[in-house]
Amino acid sequence: MTYFDYNSTTPLNRAAKDALFDAVDGQWANPSSPYKVSARVRLALDTARENLADRLHGKGTGMVFTGGATEANNSVIRYLAEILPQEKGLAISAIEHPSVMEPANHFFKGRLDLLPVSPEGVLDVDHLGAVMAAGRPGAVSVMAANNETRVIQPWGRLGRICRENGVAYHCDASQWFGKCPNYRFDNCDFLVGCSHKFGGPKGVGFLALSENWYGFRSVFGGPQEGGRRGGTENIPGILSMVAALGWADRHREGMLAQKDHRDVFEDRLIRGIPGLKCVGKSAPRLPNTSFVILPIYENLRWVTKLDVKGFQVSTGSACATGKTGRSPTMRAMDFTRGESRRTIRVSSGPQTGPESWADLAEAFLETWQSLKPDASCDGLTEVISV
Amino acid sequence: MTYFDYNSTTPLNRAAKDALFDAVDGQWANPSSPYKVSARVRLALDTARENLADRLHGKGTGMVFTGGATEANNSVIRYLAEILPQEKGLAISAIEHPSVMEPANHFFKGRLDLLPVSPEGVLDVDHLGAVMAAGRPGAVSVMAANNETRVIQPWGRLGRICRENGVAYHCDASQWFGKCPNYRFDNCDFLVGCSHKFGGPKGVGFLALSENWYGFRSVFGGPQEGGRRGGTENIPGILSMVAALGWADRHREGMLAQKDHRDVFEDRLIRGIPGLKCVGKSAPRLPNTSFVILPIYENLRWVTKLDVKGFQVSTGSACATGKTGRSPTMRAMDFTRGESRRTIRVSSGPQTGPESWADLAEAFLETWQSLKPDASCDGLTEVISV
Repeated sequence: MTYFDYNSTTPLNRAAKDALFDAVDGQWANPSSPYKVSARVRLALDTARENLADRLHGKGTGMVFTGGATEANNSVIRYLAEILPQEKGLAISAIEHPSVMEPANHFFKGRLDLLPVSPEGVLDVDHLGAVMAAGRPGAVSVMAANNETRVIQPWGRLGRICRENGVAYHCDASQWFGKCPNYRFDNCDFLVGCSHKFGGPKGVGFLALSENWYGFRSVFGGPQEGGRRGGTENIPGILSMVAALGWADRHREGMLAQKDHRDVFEDRLIRGIPGLKCVGKSAPRLPNTSFVILPIYENLRWVTKLDVKGFQVSTGSACATGKTGRSPTMRAMDFTRGESRRTIRVSSGPQTGPESWADLAEAFLETWQSLKPDASCDGLTEVISV
Repeated sequence: MTYFDYNSTTPLNRAAKDALFDAVDGQWANPSSPYKVSARVRLALDTARENLADRLHGKGTGMVFTGGATEANNSVIRYLAEILPQEKGLAISAIEHPSVMEPANHFFKGRLDLLPVSPEGVLDVDHLGAVMAAGRPGAVSVMAANNETRVIQPWGRLGRICRENGVAYHCDASQWFGKCPNYRFDNCDFLVGCSHKFGGPKGVGFLALSENWYGFRSVFGGPQEGGRRGGTENIPGILSMVAALGWADRHREGMLAQKDHRDVFEDRLIRGIPGLKCVGKSAPRLPNTSFVILPIYENLRWVTKLDVKGFQVSTGSACATGKTGRSPTMRAMDFTRGESRRTIRVSSGPQTGPESWADLAEAFLETWQSLKPDASCDGLTEVISV
């Protein structure tokens, strides 16, 4: 099995696995309990919090451990809906992940602005400026990198604009960490990360708050996480997540090298499969992802054939798999319905070698060869359902 | 180290650990992805869901996996606040866990009824009848067993009364599972369980819905859990939790036997430590717990001395540790402020043997002997801060 769906989820990396297994055996006590073994667990939790904050150039006091990015995004949107004056709304990009889009639709009904993106999938900052000038948004939510196309959004500029306008900025950076340097996120008021996207365990994530928003509260019921998120801390998960990010940071070179392998792969596909398009090729993208539109046949047919050959790739976002119609990202990028059904997302890990990429390209070309005759028989150039 | 704080959290039991480690290696794929290895993970998830539902005599279609009991309790209370007509309120026991009490205070401000308990800590069902007759509550929330005293609440009767009155019944059964038989919870509309209380991992739990409430939604953002809770499923955590409950069910005899060991322990303490009180002794209690009020000295002093001797016991609920003043349970049970600072909770696991209980009793008596002279010196019979 050669796994090319790291954007969907990742196996635990070495450090994460060691930390998880160690903690399950040695640090399972409740950090709130009043004896020595719990004090040690509490110390491990505090150390992990500072370690993570350091990696993000932030402060431990603003770091909240969560049960994942979806929970964190929901919490932030809900909190903002509760705390912002009724006349203030939320502006989000039209390509946000469902964990932002859906709570935004639910909690900001009637006061939600969708910010458009270019055909390459990049947020239109000028449009935000216009919305901002109208004085309506009390908060802005734009992801760091898109979960389908992996096109990087101008979050640095957005954060500065929001800060200058006194508007809260929420950045879902689930697809960022582990692939890109942990830049300074100083202008993000709510920064969300997701453990299982960078080699850590599922069911855990983090939310970094700016000092302006230290009053944030989400899950009620206990003094844990400074009262911001009640519930016994998932210490093994947290320690494993922080170890995972450390490992990813140490293997950054391997991740950055994916860009070269990916570009070679895309060139082979473009040369070998007439009509294939690479989305976001001229936009800044995360180094490990290729998002292509195939010239013919529904993507699931390709996925199945590649799966038989031993390669796992995705049709798009796992969260959208099985859904009919276009994802919000596809719609916002003006893909036709047919195009939306012919997308394939390929995403690698920091240790994926050039030979795996070459093998995958070969498998694509073979699949194309095996499918092509059908096309010549019936002359179809649109989607054929499998 | 002899651990007597199983009500706070538990180590992973054998089955839970095997399931977790296996899943981390073999079932880490995203169950929403479109290839074979994900289909196998999806199948494992479905199987776990049916297995858990069977254990609870419920239906898999009503079973939602969550990130823990605190999240689930918050979600239910918030959902009810949103869905119930404004004139309908919530009635909860005065001894609910903070994960119910705090969101209830937040989301049902001005429409919350607190139901009193007896001095033994048992809910007054007649009072509920009166509140119900007044027609105010749209929902009732009463736990299955208290987290501090471990006194069992009449949830079966409560559920029937609620069902007869067309009122939703939410039951936080976090302290029930793994200690008591998985009775039929047919009259519970929202039943919550917590993995790390019965030998499973932290950061995972479940919410069983009655058919009346299949429309429930909490975390938005993806089709996972039937759209009721978005976010990539924590498969290793879920599989481990379900394995943990299976193990606990198979070791039920060991847990029920704790009652005899506990009773012997309490008798020794009552005989050996004049003025010591066992709370809830005449009420139905979970078999593994003893909740005592010491005659003298702040509980942390006892905890520290017992810790040095190798025994981990708790001052009460871990969620309340470090808080000053009385917990809501203590207040509802009319404990004096002094009594509230002299409580100790001892709770065992299914494999805790009678010799460990005997050793713990011995350690208590030794501690009493070592503390007593101080008392005779200064004649104090109230709390002395450590």
